Formats: sequence, C-alpha cells, structure tokens
Amino acid sequence: MHRNEPLPVYETAVAAEWVDYNGHMNDAAYALVFSRSVDALMDRIGLDAAARKATGRSLFTLQMMLHYFKEAREGEALNVDCRVLEHDEKRVRLWLELKSGREGARLAASEQLLLSVEQTGEGARAAPWRAETQAALDALVKAHRGLETPPQAGQGVALKRKPGP
Amino acid sequence: MHRNEPLPVYETAVAAEWVDYNGHMNDAAYALVFSRSVDALMDRIGLDAAARKATGRSLFTLQMMLHYFKEAREGEALNVDCRVLEHDEKRVRLWLELKSGREGARLAASEQLLLSVEQTGEGARAAPWRAETQAALDALVKAHRGLETPPQAGQGVALKRKPGP
Repeated sequence: MHRNEPLPVYETAVAAEWVDYNGHMNDAAYALVFSRSVDALMDRIGLDAAARKATGRSLFTLQMMLHYFKEAREGEALNVDCRVLEHDEKRVRLWLELKSGREGARLAASEQLLLSVEQTGEGARAAPWRAETQAALDALVKAHRGLETPPQAGQGVALKRKPGP
Repeated sequence: MHRNEPLPVYETAVAAEWVDYNGHMNDAAYALVFSRSVDALMDRIGLDAAARKATGRSLFTLQMMLHYFKEAREGEALNVDCRVLEHDEKRVRLWLELKSGREGARLAASEQLLLSVEQTGEGARAAPWRAETQAALDALVKAHRGLETPPQAGQGVALKRKPGP
C-alpha cells in the first residue's frame, strides 16, 4: 500500500451484456462494478468469504451515490481505486473511482456508506467492527490522510450546481 | 394517472441471480431495478425504443443516489413508483421508490438526475427535450405537485445524520 495514493482494488472490462440501447455501459452496470470493488476491499479488511462464514460478520450498504462522468464501451478496461473517507465503530464511508484502464480518464465515482453487521439465524443486526477490520480501516485512513477530499464527496443529487466556495 | 399519487412504473420479482453472499438482493441489483424503471418511464414520455430510433434522442444518467432501507429476498415481489421532482429544458430530477409488492414496506429509494441527449454518428450531445417529452414531464410535475418532498431528496452520503430543522 502506497501512502497518499488511493488503493487499487478491482479491475475488469466492460462485458457485452452491460451495454444497453445507448451503445454504452448501462448505469446499473457501474453499480455492479463498484459493488464488486467493495467485495474486493472486504477481502483486504478481514471480511473475505472465509471470515464471513467463520464470524457471521458482513457489510450491508446503506447509501450509494454514483456520479457518471464519461461513457464506457464494450471491452474497455476498467480500474477501480478506493479510499476510506471516514469510519466510526460500525460504519465506513468510502470513495471509489472508476477509470478507463490504469491511467485513463475518470469514468465515474461512487460514494458509499456501509454498515458492519452480524448475521445470525434470526437475521442481521448492526455490530461493531472486529479488531482486525478496525485495524485495517485505521491503516487505510492513515495512508489516505494526505489526499484531498474529492469535491463531489457528500454532495447529493442536484439539478443546479451549487455555487463554489 | 392519479393526481397526487406517484406513478407506478415497473414491477418485477427478486431474481435468483440478484441474491448475493448475504442471502439478500445485492446492492447493484437495486440499481438495475431502478434503471429498468426509468426505461419504463421513458416509454411514457416519448422516449420509447421506436422514438429513440426515429429521433436519436435518449437519456443519459448524470447522478444516481440509492438509499437502502430493507433487505429483499429471492422471489419477493417488487413495485417501483416514480415522481418528477423538477426539470429544466434538458434535465430531469426523479424520485423513485421500491416497495415490497404494491402496498408493502418501502425497501429502497433512488434519486436520479438524467440528461436529454441527441445521439449522432459523432457521439452524443445534450439537447433540449422534444415537445412531446416536455409536455409529458410538465404533466407529471403538475400531477405530483401536491406530494410532499421526500425527506431524503437532495441528501448526499453522510456518516452522521444531520440534525433536523
């Protein structure tokens, strides 16, 4: 992990079945790519499949914002990197960016609020992070502390752009 | 169309392939259901497949916010209704709600900002609504004028809830 650089978490390519009648990657397919990116992050913070099975812990999505910047075409290489913006004892707010290839144009971004849960026979309930996950999130926050906050972070959907500061 | 009631636009059921390792509908599948709901809305506002082909007009998604309220299980009936919050000459801001069945619990909501585009051989560019679409959006805004603004409309992702007014 390099300090002050977002963490590369996932790469894929635009599948044929993700292309819609507009001839580009459908808006919902971006959500799928970001969802898989969060799965890949989970593998790095003590929430991989084996840990989920052993501990009953998992992540539930509470909020997901998607910003669409550019179209993506069938076969285009996609790379996602991730930053931890903040977290408390059971929630984490992430910032993910989707680029065309490793160094290409920024295609989209996603801000997500995720909840730590414990799944039991009676359903899921919010639960504090396990120590391993807490330590991994702390390390990511520390590594990303030097990065500027993305200008769209925290922004909601708006027809009119808010005037700058 | 009933006045002061959101417009029912889409119904489906939770497909087996939408269920993830948490045993519930995956977060990205909600985006897919909302995307298909917007396709269904397009059929009602002069942007169906035949109109897209004849006119080159379509919609591109600029922003999509998803609020997750409750889990959905395989086979569960899903109903989506839609409101037009506002629009200008080439953009529209929608509010969509996903319920369990027709009268069941609210599972999720999505706020979306969509752009009117004209697709040409050289790509897509923003273009004002055609008269038919403008009239259909005006009618929806008028029909939904009596509805209260959803409390989450315009909200961004936040770890801490903002204090109420």
